[in-house]
Amino acid sequence: MPAVAPRSGEAIFASAERINSELFTLTYGAIVRQLLTDLEEVDEVNKQLDQMGYNIGLRLIDEFLAKSNVSRCVDFKETAEVIAKVGFKMFLGVSATVTNWDAEGTTCSLVLEDNPLVDFVELPDTCQGLHYCNVLNGVVRGALEMVSMKTEVTWVRDMLHGDDAYELQVKLLKQIPEEYPYKDDE
Amino acid sequence: MPAVAPRSGEAIFASAERINSELFTLTYGAIVRQLLTDLEEVDEVNKQLDQMGYNIGLRLIDEFLAKSNVSRCVDFKETAEVIAKVGFKMFLGVSATVTNWDAEGTTCSLVLEDNPLVDFVELPDTCQGLHYCNVLNGVVRGALEMVSMKTEVTWVRDMLHGDDAYELQVKLLKQIPEEYPYKDDE
Repeated sequence: MPAVAPRSGEAIFASAERINSELFTLTYGAIVRQLLTDLEEVDEVNKQLDQMGYNIGLRLIDEFLAKSNVSRCVDFKETAEVIAKVGFKMFLGVSATVTNWDAEGTTCSLVLEDNPLVDFVELPDTCQGLHYCNVLNGVVRGALEMVSMKTEVTWVRDMLHGDDAYELQVKLLKQIPEEYPYKDDE
Repeated sequence: MPAVAPRSGEAIFASAERINSELFTLTYGAIVRQLLTDLEEVDEVNKQLDQMGYNIGLRLIDEFLAKSNVSRCVDFKETAEVIAKVGFKMFLGVSATVTNWDAEGTTCSLVLEDNPLVDFVELPDTCQGLHYCNVLNGVVRGALEMVSMKTEVTWVRDMLHGDDAYELQVKLLKQIPEEYPYKDDE
């Protein structure tokens, strides 16, 4: 069987079913507003957005693997590049840059200069602790968990807090060896 | 000044910024799940989704008018056609059909045979009263209110309840004459 080349994020994005990004942005804004009303505490909202993203990530990875033809990444470095260049592009329409690797090669940053989630958004003074895009942390964490990587994902820079970009730090905590519960011939 | 022809929903959809529809579908699913957890009562969830949609519609109409070159519709009939053919196509990527007009021309149905909100969705037995797509009611209602039409929007058919299509009944309650608070020469 000939090997199938991985597809670029651009190509997948262009061919996938899509919806208008403004509808998505406004819908996401409506969620955040709803959570702020229901939960009151900004920390709780951050937690809930992360949890929602995690649940989304657990599902989104299937679509990602099915559409991208990406096969097993050799290491965390390659994984990070694939998330940044293929994953983000495929789902959000924007690519991220991978940077700030630590010496061990287990922590890096994904930097986004454009982020469709935040069009039209300004944080009021009462929400300064809010990580408005926290759903993205959860998506990355959930998706990676499905390919056996336990990670911790945190914001380092956030343009809504006055920084010059969005920087998401991804720290690999544990790589779970893939175990098949049953062997084919059992 | 030459008149600018209205653009088709297809053309606007093709040229607008978009995101992957699966991300939107999963994000919308996460909202509904969140609301079910927080509010417990299905009726309350329906109400909240409608309210979220309403807030989205109030904003989305601006993008719609800016991008579509649609000028003032002569009557409610034309308005309904524009929502179905341009609005739905532009934002969700699917068109609706306008049907079931009453004799007075003030009530009609928008029928959707395809609906990206519900990919992968099945309602559990405990949620049979849920109108999963209730955000759409609110969007239509909110958007129309911004162009001076008070409407009531209700589900007549819902594929998640076993019907053969999604049918949204739109009833014009009141057309508010546009009044300018100040005259230019005052």
